[in-house]
Amino acid sequence: MNRVLIKDALTNTPAPAQVAVAGWVRTVRISKGGFSFITLNDGSCLASIQVVADKKLPNYEAEIVRLAAGSSVVVRGELVQSRGKGQAVEIQAAEVRVIGACDAERYPIQPKRHSFEFLRTQAHLRPRTNTFGAVARVRNEMCRAIHEFFQSRGFVYVHTPIITASDCEGAGQLFRVTTLEPGKADFAQDFFGRPTNLTVSGQLEAEAYACALGKVYTFGPTFRAEDSNTPRHLAEFWMVEPEMAFCDLKGDADLAEEFLKFIFKAVLDRCREDMEFFHKWVDKTVIDTLAAVAESDFVRLSYTEAVEILGKAERQWEFPPAWGSELQTEHERFLTEQTFRKPVIVTDFPAAIKPFYMRLNDEQPAGRETAAAMDVLVPRIGEIIGGSQREERLEVLAERMTAAGINPDDYWWYLDLRRYGSVPHAGFGLGLERTVQFVTGMANIRDVIPFPRTPRSAEY
Amino acid sequence: MNRVLIKDALTNTPAPAQVAVAGWVRTVRISKGGFSFITLNDGSCLASIQVVADKKLPNYEAEIVRLAAGSSVVVRGELVQSRGKGQAVEIQAAEVRVIGACDAERYPIQPKRHSFEFLRTQAHLRPRTNTFGAVARVRNEMCRAIHEFFQSRGFVYVHTPIITASDCEGAGQLFRVTTLEPGKADFAQDFFGRPTNLTVSGQLEAEAYACALGKVYTFGPTFRAEDSNTPRHLAEFWMVEPEMAFCDLKGDADLAEEFLKFIFKAVLDRCREDMEFFHKWVDKTVIDTLAAVAESDFVRLSYTEAVEILGKAERQWEFPPAWGSELQTEHERFLTEQTFRKPVIVTDFPAAIKPFYMRLNDEQPAGRETAAAMDVLVPRIGEIIGGSQREERLEVLAERMTAAGINPDDYWWYLDLRRYGSVPHAGFGLGLERTVQFVTGMANIRDVIPFPRTPRSAEY
Repeated sequence: MNRVLIKDALTNTPAPAQVAVAGWVRTVRISKGGFSFITLNDGSCLASIQVVADKKLPNYEAEIVRLAAGSSVVVRGELVQSRGKGQAVEIQAAEVRVIGACDAERYPIQPKRHSFEFLRTQAHLRPRTNTFGAVARVRNEMCRAIHEFFQSRGFVYVHTPIITASDCEGAGQLFRVTTLEPGKADFAQDFFGRPTNLTVSGQLEAEAYACALGKVYTFGPTFRAEDSNTPRHLAEFWMVEPEMAFCDLKGDADLAEEFLKFIFKAVLDRCREDMEFFHKWVDKTVIDTLAAVAESDFVRLSYTEAVEILGKAERQWEFPPAWGSELQTEHERFLTEQTFRKPVIVTDFPAAIKPFYMRLNDEQPAGRETAAAMDVLVPRIGEIIGGSQREERLEVLAERMTAAGINPDDYWWYLDLRRYGSVPHAGFGLGLERTVQFVTGMANIRDVIPFPRTPRSAEY
Repeated sequence: MNRVLIKDALTNTPAPAQVAVAGWVRTVRISKGGFSFITLNDGSCLASIQVVADKKLPNYEAEIVRLAAGSSVVVRGELVQSRGKGQAVEIQAAEVRVIGACDAERYPIQPKRHSFEFLRTQAHLRPRTNTFGAVARVRNEMCRAIHEFFQSRGFVYVHTPIITASDCEGAGQLFRVTTLEPGKADFAQDFFGRPTNLTVSGQLEAEAYACALGKVYTFGPTFRAEDSNTPRHLAEFWMVEPEMAFCDLKGDADLAEEFLKFIFKAVLDRCREDMEFFHKWVDKTVIDTLAAVAESDFVRLSYTEAVEILGKAERQWEFPPAWGSELQTEHERFLTEQTFRKPVIVTDFPAAIKPFYMRLNDEQPAGRETAAAMDVLVPRIGEIIGGSQREERLEVLAERMTAAGINPDDYWWYLDLRRYGSVPHAGFGLGLERTVQFVTGMANIRDVIPFPRTPRSAEY
């Protein structure tokens, strides 16, 4: 008899069928009628399946009635329509084989609600809970949808280097990678013969591939050695970065809008049960918000227009909006939650606050130079995507680098892309964890990645 | 008029249609008849499209006849049946707009065959060549097929940590990750408050998720600080690692066989043109080898049987086979190329040469203890997959760790998986780059990853 996933057993037509399932016991309830109810979960879906074990089973007294939560079992039996409430089908067990016992006294995952803080100390066991199982499945579905979206549109998946000598954002918050003995500092003796660090973005290298293959995307880990112990920061997180040749900022914004709608719709369609769980237990707005984003036309407006709107708003700001300053989360949320009540794409930011690689707009008033940058804002979290058209003009790019204190010689290869058949091109970055937070409503970013990396914490 | 990919233009039905394409010029040939032939490539496929530009075009003399290889252009025109040989359709240009010029004298990618050694020094431009464009597309298709395989079978994609304090293989060839100033060695002051390194495998963490969700897989970068300057070694490479609860070594071998057949078939079906290129220019055996693997039943035999076969072989060995020693590549290739002429799965290796986490087989003769390990061998490269059933018995695992000089306390969480509802489980690892080498026939592993990381080389 083939073993089936509980997900498939539960959605079976209720015609009687012999099945075997395997999983971990959530609860055991001993009925006075001479049988027991075991709820069994295998992680394939949120729901557990109910197993009815009759006292006639040979190991009933010795094992079944003593089963502790967390034990692993294999159950063979008949899939029948349930006579109880709460489930359509259940398994009438012909055999309940205990595989691994569980010391109920010491098992950290008790059959009750645990705080997320506590479960963070049990990151290896927390996927056995409803919440973290659901997070894992939703995160998986988002990753699947991300690949599906780009592959179906002819983008080539490119693996850009994790260890690099570049620092794309010039942020300086880098993890150094070394094989030197602790205390040694002679980089000529280091593995790569020079200082190297963990990448903060695959964009520059992705540009090289876009300028050969047309449409590419990266999807990999990126790093920030930022000493921020907040619910919004991770030292290690996953990022998606598409890059398109022969594409301007408008095409970039079009792609970003289509992309977000696609992945949100995929999660709503394919993770219904998990999303209903988040709706019920974590955040009452998540399903409505996602559905609204998936169906609305995103508003597009310039940074200059955005600052005007913010300036006219009758409210107090922690950071009063002013042309030339970054938009803060309070500004972003105001635009998307109050002004427009839908996603907003803000474009054409002051060049002075944007990195060297973003394209300077043409014909601009002096003192108001802007770059062809965009931020995609969504309710509750603000910026979810940042992107830009890239500077394709060799001289302008070299000037911008020099002005930013970057030696163009260090980026000879990046400038080569502008020397030989340069093309307008554009792309954006989406942080996976921020997006999973948006989708699930989980408040702390440490709860949407399996094993979070944060200051002074690298357990597991 | 919508811009189309050259791939789509070339496979169009030849009914006349207005199209626009954009790409990089490969060659320009000026005909005496008063027109020019431009071959244009956009990276969407190996083939270039032929553009016929008539001298009546306004920029014919000023730009078109002077177009250098490597220039970027946008072409608008009519897709017509070609009157020339070598292509079914061509574009009768109504407009050829030059986007980015290319200094033909200095452009490193000349219209001739370059050595792979030279192109390694131009990793940012080499995807513009036939070979490296084809490698990128095949690598992409393999990644797509890998996700497709696991997703369609209910596996959950899990991101295991890149920065870690564990060393799964105990190999010691680790890259250290640090924010300490060069020369400093006080780990209490380091970002994570302890020594950390780049992961060599996501297996241990994947086991935690398999013991909650049932079937999971990782697909991410892994690292070896091995000072090996060979065509077979990279410091940074991508690895796929499925892990299954309630699975033994046989189930693991079944999955490995099904998996390899699936991804090879996907590449053969979907990258026909690129594979024919590799067949013609790189290795005459690649298509036949892949097709044979995709269709054959893999041979399965034990390590002990393998050593017996090797011992009887009438040939000279660099490393004479002996029970208790690793199989060498010469042994692996002999088994798969000479003895069986198909893929071979060798199982049950001596426990002494395998890591602590592999399950000790039951009831074994003293001195001949084996572990439930497997290697999948394919022609030409030998081992392509290594895997095992994991040790699920708490006491046996703790003993094996101690014997290997590992402090079980450091792996408290890994042991917890055996304390609470332990289950038989198994998995394997596939190195992406070795597999792309096998598929394409490319001899040097540095030529199948966009920006290779090797000793004393971290350019780009």
